[in-house]
Amino acid sequence: MRIAVLGGDGFCGWPAALRLSAIGHEVWIVDNLSRRKIDVDLEIESLTPIQPIGARLSAWREASGRNVRFTRLDVARNYHRLLGFLQEVKPDAVVHYAEQRSAPYSMRSSVEKRYTVENNVAATHNLLCAIVESGLDIHVVHLGTMGVYGYSGAGPIPEGYVRAKFEGFDGTWVEREILSPPDPGSVYHMTKTLDQLLFFFYNKNDRVKVTDLHQGVVWGTNTKECLASETLINRFDYDGEYGTVLNRFLVQAAIDHPLTVYGTGGQTRAFIHIRDSVECIRLAIENPPSDGERVRIFNQMTETHRVADLAKLVARIGGAKIGEVPNPRREAERNDLIVTNDGLKRLGLKPTTLEGGLLEEILEVARKYGDRIDRTRIVSRSYWNSERKNAVEGA
Amino acid sequence: MRIAVLGGDGFCGWPAALRLSAIGHEVWIVDNLSRRKIDVDLEIESLTPIQPIGARLSAWREASGRNVRFTRLDVARNYHRLLGFLQEVKPDAVVHYAEQRSAPYSMRSSVEKRYTVENNVAATHNLLCAIVESGLDIHVVHLGTMGVYGYSGAGPIPEGYVRAKFEGFDGTWVEREILSPPDPGSVYHMTKTLDQLLFFFYNKNDRVKVTDLHQGVVWGTNTKECLASETLINRFDYDGEYGTVLNRFLVQAAIDHPLTVYGTGGQTRAFIHIRDSVECIRLAIENPPSDGERVRIFNQMTETHRVADLAKLVARIGGAKIGEVPNPRREAERNDLIVTNDGLKRLGLKPTTLEGGLLEEILEVARKYGDRIDRTRIVSRSYWNSERKNAVEGA
Repeated sequence: MRIAVLGGDGFCGWPAALRLSAIGHEVWIVDNLSRRKIDVDLEIESLTPIQPIGARLSAWREASGRNVRFTRLDVARNYHRLLGFLQEVKPDAVVHYAEQRSAPYSMRSSVEKRYTVENNVAATHNLLCAIVESGLDIHVVHLGTMGVYGYSGAGPIPEGYVRAKFEGFDGTWVEREILSPPDPGSVYHMTKTLDQLLFFFYNKNDRVKVTDLHQGVVWGTNTKECLASETLINRFDYDGEYGTVLNRFLVQAAIDHPLTVYGTGGQTRAFIHIRDSVECIRLAIENPPSDGERVRIFNQMTETHRVADLAKLVARIGGAKIGEVPNPRREAERNDLIVTNDGLKRLGLKPTTLEGGLLEEILEVARKYGDRIDRTRIVSRSYWNSERKNAVEGA
Repeated sequence: MRIAVLGGDGFCGWPAALRLSAIGHEVWIVDNLSRRKIDVDLEIESLTPIQPIGARLSAWREASGRNVRFTRLDVARNYHRLLGFLQEVKPDAVVHYAEQRSAPYSMRSSVEKRYTVENNVAATHNLLCAIVESGLDIHVVHLGTMGVYGYSGAGPIPEGYVRAKFEGFDGTWVEREILSPPDPGSVYHMTKTLDQLLFFFYNKNDRVKVTDLHQGVVWGTNTKECLASETLINRFDYDGEYGTVLNRFLVQAAIDHPLTVYGTGGQTRAFIHIRDSVECIRLAIENPPSDGERVRIFNQMTETHRVADLAKLVARIGGAKIGEVPNPRREAERNDLIVTNDGLKRLGLKPTTLEGGLLEEILEVARKYGDRIDRTRIVSRSYWNSERKNAVEGA
C-alpha cells in the first residue's frame, strides 16, 4: 500500500514509518520537524542522539534496501501543498501524527495553549478537507488519546461509542449509542476531543474513512527497525514536559534521582509499549473500515497501572528512591480504570507487558546516554492553572 | 456594567450593542468588519442600506446621547491586541459573536470550510486564553446554536446537559449528567460543538464563567434602537448563503419569487425574533453564573415550526407561491422537535411569537428596499457534499 505518515519524524511516527516500510509498504514521511524545533525552544535534547532526517533515511536505505521519501511540509499551515501532495502521491492511507502531543507543554502559557489548539485543529481539519477536495478514497489513521474519556466515568471505558439510556418524548428511557462523553484534562487532550468531532462530521457528511486510535501512555523507545543502525535510533524524552511517566522514572532511576511521583501516585493510566503501538498502526492500516462505516475507534493500550505501583516497580529493579512532588496538574488524586481493548486484539495484537523484561532494556539505554541528561529538566515547570502553580512553587 | 461586544457590527451584535447601551451599560464594540468583507467577496449587499460603523456610532450618539466605542480588531488573529484590550477595558462581560455564522457559507468549498473552523475556534480559544492570562473575572456570553444537538435525538432537547444512564463497573445502570451528545449538521455547526468543549475545559480548569446561548433561527431585522434613525438600520440578509429561512421567505414573497422550500419542507426548526434575541443577551449578562458554577447553557428560542408551515403562512399573508427546490443540504427530510427553554423564561423572557404581527413589518421592509434585491442570489449555491451538488444541479 501507499502510505503517508504525517509527523513521521516524531517519537511514534518514526518507528511506525520504518515498520511500514520494512514490511513492504511504500512510505512517505511528511513532517515540518516541529518536534525538533520545540526542543530548540525548550533548550533540551532527546536522551538518545537522534540524527537529522536525511541521515536517518540514508541509513534506512542502507540497512533495508528500501526507500522512504520525505516531504517537509507544515500540514496545519500549508493546505495547498498538502492537497497537492495527496493528489500526486494518491496514498491509500494517511497516518496522522501531525499534532503537538504533550499535555504539560500545552499548559505552559498562552503561547503553547494557542499553538496546540491552532496546530492540532488545523492539521486534522486540513487533512479532512484536502481528502474531500481531492475526491480520493483515503483511509485516515489518527492517533488519539485515552485522555479524551477523562478518568471519572461511570464504568469501564468503551471503544469510542457507548450505549446510554435517555428520556424519550413519552417519558420512557430510550437506549441510543453515542460517542463516549468527552472529559479532557488538558488543552492537549481537549484538542483530541475536538478531533473526534471533526472526524464524526466528515465521516457523516462525506464518508471519509477514519480509524481513531485512542492511545495510552507509550513506554519504551526502540523497535526492531530502529535498532538496525545507531543512526536509526528513536528519540527518548526524559524531561518534565515531553517525557512519558514510565520512561521518565527509568531515566530517574538510572541517574539516582528520586522518582517524581505526583502526589500519592494514585492515578491509574493505560500503557502501551512502542513496539505494540507501531504494530497497532499496521493492523489499523491493513484493516480499513468499509464504505459508509462510521468512524472506527480502538483503544490502543495493553495494560493499566497505578502510578505508585510503577514507581515501586522501577525502584525495585533500578534501585531508586521514590519521591513525592506536589502535582502541577489539575487531576483526581486517585482513580480506577478498566479499559476495553478488544478491537486491536481481534485484529491480532499480541500485547507486550511490563513483565516482558523490556524495562531493563530501557534502563540500559538510559545508563548508556546518562551523560546527556540535564538534571535540571527532570521536573516539570508546566502548571495547569494559577492554583496549581501556587501549590507547587509555594511547597 | 462594562461590556465588550465581539462581532458587534453584525446582524445580532449590532442591535445587542445598542440595546445594552440604551439601558445604561458602558459598551465597546470589537469587530474586524469581516461580515461586510464577506459581502464584498460574495458580491452582494444587505437588503437594508447599512451604514459604515463610524456613521452608525455618530448617529447613536445623536439619537441617544450615549457613547459606544469601537475597536477594529481580529479576535482570531491578534491575540495580543485582544489581551491588551481586556487588560485596559476590564469588562465585566464579553458577548462573543465573533464567529462566521452561516452554515451554507461554511460548506461552499475548502476555502470557506477552513476559514470557518480556523476563525471560530481561534476566536473562542483566544478569548478564553486571554481571560485566563489577564487574571480578570470576566463573564463570557457566547452565541451558540440549537444545531449542536442535531435533529435526531431520543427526546426533547434539554438545555445543554442531559441525564443519561450508563452501564457501571458492576453491570448496573448508573445515572450521570452529561453534555448533550453533539450531532452537527454543517462545518459551521461543528465549530459550535468545538466551542462547547473549549468552554467545558476552561470552565473546569480555570473557572472561567460562561453562559452559552444555543440560539434558534433568528427572524426579523430591526429593534427599537435600530429604528431611532435610518443610519442605525440593521442588516437584512436575503441571499441563499446568509439569509435565514423565514426572512428569506418574506423577501421572496415581496418580490413574487416562489418560496424556496428545500424538499418537502418537513424540517422543524426553532425560532426567535431578533428583539427577543437581544433581550436574552441582556438577561444573560445581568444574571451571571456564580463562582465555580459550570458552563450555563440556555436554549435561546421561543417557538418551533415546520418549514412547510412557515411557507404556507408567508404564502397566505404575502400572496406568494410555494416552490420546491432540491435540498442542497444533507439533512433529514422530516423531523420533530421539542425544545426546553425554561432558563431564559425564568430570567424574565417574554416570547415574541409569529402571531404578533411582526411578519407584516418585515414584509414592509422587504418591499421598501425591494429594488436593492439581486434575484440571482435568492437560491443557495452551497452544497453539503458532491452527492447533494449532483442532485441539485442535475435536477
